[in-house]
Amino acid sequence: MRLAMFSVAGRESRVGLVNDRGVYDICARIPEAPLGMIAILEAWGSLKPALIKLGTEAADHVLDKVRLTAPIPRPGKIMCLGLNYRDHAAEAAMALPDSQLWFAKMQTAVNGPFDAIQLPRVSTKLDYEAELAIVIGRRCRHVSRVDAPAVIAGYCVANDVSVRDWQLRTSQFVLGKSFDTHAPFGPWIVTADEISDAQNLGIRCLVNGEIRQNSNTREMVFDCLSMIEHLSQAMTLEPGDLILTGTPAGVGVASKPPRFLVAGDLVRVEIDGIGAIENRVEPELV
Amino acid sequence: MRLAMFSVAGRESRVGLVNDRGVYDICARIPEAPLGMIAILEAWGSLKPALIKLGTEAADHVLDKVRLTAPIPRPGKIMCLGLNYRDHAAEAAMALPDSQLWFAKMQTAVNGPFDAIQLPRVSTKLDYEAELAIVIGRRCRHVSRVDAPAVIAGYCVANDVSVRDWQLRTSQFVLGKSFDTHAPFGPWIVTADEISDAQNLGIRCLVNGEIRQNSNTREMVFDCLSMIEHLSQAMTLEPGDLILTGTPAGVGVASKPPRFLVAGDLVRVEIDGIGAIENRVEPELV
Repeated sequence: MRLAMFSVAGRESRVGLVNDRGVYDICARIPEAPLGMIAILEAWGSLKPALIKLGTEAADHVLDKVRLTAPIPRPGKIMCLGLNYRDHAAEAAMALPDSQLWFAKMQTAVNGPFDAIQLPRVSTKLDYEAELAIVIGRRCRHVSRVDAPAVIAGYCVANDVSVRDWQLRTSQFVLGKSFDTHAPFGPWIVTADEISDAQNLGIRCLVNGEIRQNSNTREMVFDCLSMIEHLSQAMTLEPGDLILTGTPAGVGVASKPPRFLVAGDLVRVEIDGIGAIENRVEPELV
Repeated sequence: MRLAMFSVAGRESRVGLVNDRGVYDICARIPEAPLGMIAILEAWGSLKPALIKLGTEAADHVLDKVRLTAPIPRPGKIMCLGLNYRDHAAEAAMALPDSQLWFAKMQTAVNGPFDAIQLPRVSTKLDYEAELAIVIGRRCRHVSRVDAPAVIAGYCVANDVSVRDWQLRTSQFVLGKSFDTHAPFGPWIVTADEISDAQNLGIRCLVNGEIRQNSNTREMVFDCLSMIEHLSQAMTLEPGDLILTGTPAGVGVASKPPRFLVAGDLVRVEIDGIGAIENRVEPELV
């Protein structure tokens, strides 16, 4: 099941169900549906029969006629795992970490799946990172690997857009990872029941149609379940939290010479079984 | 003016004005006051005359009879500056950074000014860090030093509680800084108009009454205004965002031998002109 946030004619975003027929306005069509994506993720188990039935009826909108916005407008946190594909750690000339290497993106960086990525005023070292994103569906702490599947609501495609000079200016990555617009994700949340194996999904990044990253989530060093186990030893995970699971080889900074993004570039990230997001690079307006 | 979140008899927290007479329930007493601390910070300029008048009337509660809770229940972000006092960088055996060294605490770590700090199940390396916290009052980006005072709503006392083994296990600090309950702050927001010089405030941490940190905000490497200037080059700052401005020398991990916090310890952080927070260390419940 694909759950999206969508906007029609510039109006406020609403929670939608997406299928081949089109887009359904969940809160308008299902009276018992709670308001907002996070509430719907929490209630998804009990709402599922009504959502399945809704999907057999006529849709409210044609997909091409709506604007998809970030599926979670304000994630409580966006935790990101670094150096989690063997080939990317090698190209970054960094040792494979013994322990999971976590950093964060700030929620003000959230961006829609098809909205512009800002080329910052203060840097030209703009780069892409194709990533599988996990969406948490249940408040939890100290979750074992065995119990971890139950707290996953679904998955998105994400681009962990990075400003390399700001990321590497000090030991801590967070500023270079948190520029406004640098966390585009979507195009929707594919619920976990539709992903038979999250560790076997083709993942690619294309810039202006040229394939730059091309890998499979089976190449991860730490898998999704071990991420949830590790993170939740420290902190409570909450519905709507995002976990970005690392990027494979092929980022621009690792090219010889480096190939950074420039204004006008079209960056597409796609993951088999989930979908694609596509963002144009535009200069930050003064 | 002191603005607090307070709870009476276990009920939901409300926004309060605190003075020597007691605590005033702002939203009950001022009909035009918006709901919630962040909305009140945004409207503070226009509300100020009504708040001043309210403070001359009889209070609703005696301060001792309310429970003060975190002044911002859910900061959009908590950005923290590392190694920002010369003496602390020296004791940590870390070079003074050329550039501002930023990391983040996750919002699930938020804790009240007098609530328990959890001693984690997974670590015994629990430490304190006395810090001045800036509360942002206005949405902004690309703020110059000259304009920075206008975006500061006020200041709090904070304890940047740290789990040292988790903080230093990888290159990135965020996990060790973001355990649940490890961002206590308060006891209230002192509005910026009452702090004549944020760079000249005595700051101390006491553990069980013993002074462990004792410094002054004039010892900062980067001052508050330059922090806002730097951060806002990367990201939009929003009302309710917290900026933790670094800690002086005297943290437990730097003692020879290290002196970590244990269950039962009472940790007090105080800043002249703002107030004090006091948190008891308790084992994390299984």
